Amino acid sequence: MHFTSEQRLDDGSLERDFTLGAIPGILWTPTSSPAPLILLGHPGGLRTMYPRLAGRARRSAADGFAAATIELPGSGDRPRSADAEQARADLRRALAAGEPVDEIVDRLVLPLVERAVPEWQSTLDALLSLPEVSGPVGYSGGVIAIGIRLAVVEPRIVAAGLFAGSFVPGAMFDEARRVTIPLHVLLQWDDEGNDRQRALDLFDAIGSQEKTLHANMGGHTGVPQFAGEDAARFFARHLK
Amino acid sequence: MHFTSEQRLDDGSLERDFTLGAIPGILWTPTSSPAPLILLGHPGGLRTMYPRLAGRARRSAADGFAAATIELPGSGDRPRSADAEQARADLRRALAAGEPVDEIVDRLVLPLVERAVPEWQSTLDALLSLPEVSGPVGYSGGVIAIGIRLAVVEPRIVAAGLFAGSFVPGAMFDEARRVTIPLHVLLQWDDEGNDRQRALDLFDAIGSQEKTLHANMGGHTGVPQFAGEDAARFFARHLK
Repeated sequence: MHFTSEQRLDDGSLERDFTLGAIPGILWTPTSSPAPLILLGHPGGLRTMYPRLAGRARRSAADGFAAATIELPGSGDRPRSADAEQARADLRRALAAGEPVDEIVDRLVLPLVERAVPEWQSTLDALLSLPEVSGPVGYSGGVIAIGIRLAVVEPRIVAAGLFAGSFVPGAMFDEARRVTIPLHVLLQWDDEGNDRQRALDLFDAIGSQEKTLHANMGGHTGVPQFAGEDAARFFARHLK
Repeated sequence: MHFTSEQRLDDGSLERDFTLGAIPGILWTPTSSPAPLILLGHPGGLRTMYPRLAGRARRSAADGFAAATIELPGSGDRPRSADAEQARADLRRALAAGEPVDEIVDRLVLPLVERAVPEWQSTLDALLSLPEVSGPVGYSGGVIAIGIRLAVVEPRIVAAGLFAGSFVPGAMFDEARRVTIPLHVLLQWDDEGNDRQRALDLFDAIGSQEKTLHANMGGHTGVPQFAGEDAARFFARHLK
């Protein structure tokens, strides 16, 4: 892990860009140290996502948590995958035509999960070796398929707050049944890009004894502020 | 409104039994006055429900709210209705036999709503004439059909936190579409006494721009403590 820049923010926390091999990422650490860690998931594209990620990191810092994120394979400045680009184009076409998307979602999301999860795990290795970062660790956000795989395979992650999405390969429903950590799922009831019933089915499949669904009105980016606060309290309950 | 007994609780709030005509009720007022008011709905049977109602009232008092409840028509010490008793017995039989219950639910719940809602409104008249109780007013709990009717017809109620139930007459779905106040709906995902899909359909039908569904694991009485705290924050947002 190689830090490439740093800046002190007005709340006293430290924001540092890093690279881990060829993967760019950002780490935010609060003034209190060592801090539990929240991994900030996102749909890809660190530059575009930066304002929202920085907002979530600021909220995490206020609660005494470090936060970190990395670029997804094939997104942002990372090399494109021809197969993924093809699948993305096919998905757009199929959605516009109202055609079934299951096979395309498999082609798009399964390889992404296969590549991204080990990268998040390597990032976790590196972050937890820093003196200012400690466990426990939470995973927050999308891609929900990545969050579910991490919840199953990565024992250092003790709680996850996931953004409900319907672009979940059918095979992930079986994985969801193997999740046992506390889960907080945020669903935008009228999310234009999601199939609500599939999102509810996935929530139902999750094996955790403690799982909570918070559904709110508004579209994909219309999450109300109080829903963000509820999610923050979920992590405060489980990472302290 | 006639107060029949009073006791000072260890948190400083005052618990008073009252009667309004033939209707028994309980009023809790916090130390700060005048206080906004939360009406505590329940499925009927004040004596049986007392420990849970008192717990909810205590939480309301901690947030600076008065709380009040009345006995439902045909429950507790109030005269039984032969039709309602028959409908209740029919419902138990139909549920045990796995038969459709829609017609029975209509017979049981619609007359209850017709009788209970004007009683809640008269209670509100009396409570709001007390110097220690002010608006705004919230309605919290079940019976969800009563909560929905009150949300539609009673303009003094500005927010409602409802316990999802599936024993909702079909006609109430049209009323749900006319609800415009902020609504917080609590759903126990594995509630043995409820039809989850019908509860989700009812949530979907609610017309409010701000409506939130919190679904948690556990049966009917297994609401986790953090879900109660989320509901309390909902009222704090809307009644202050």
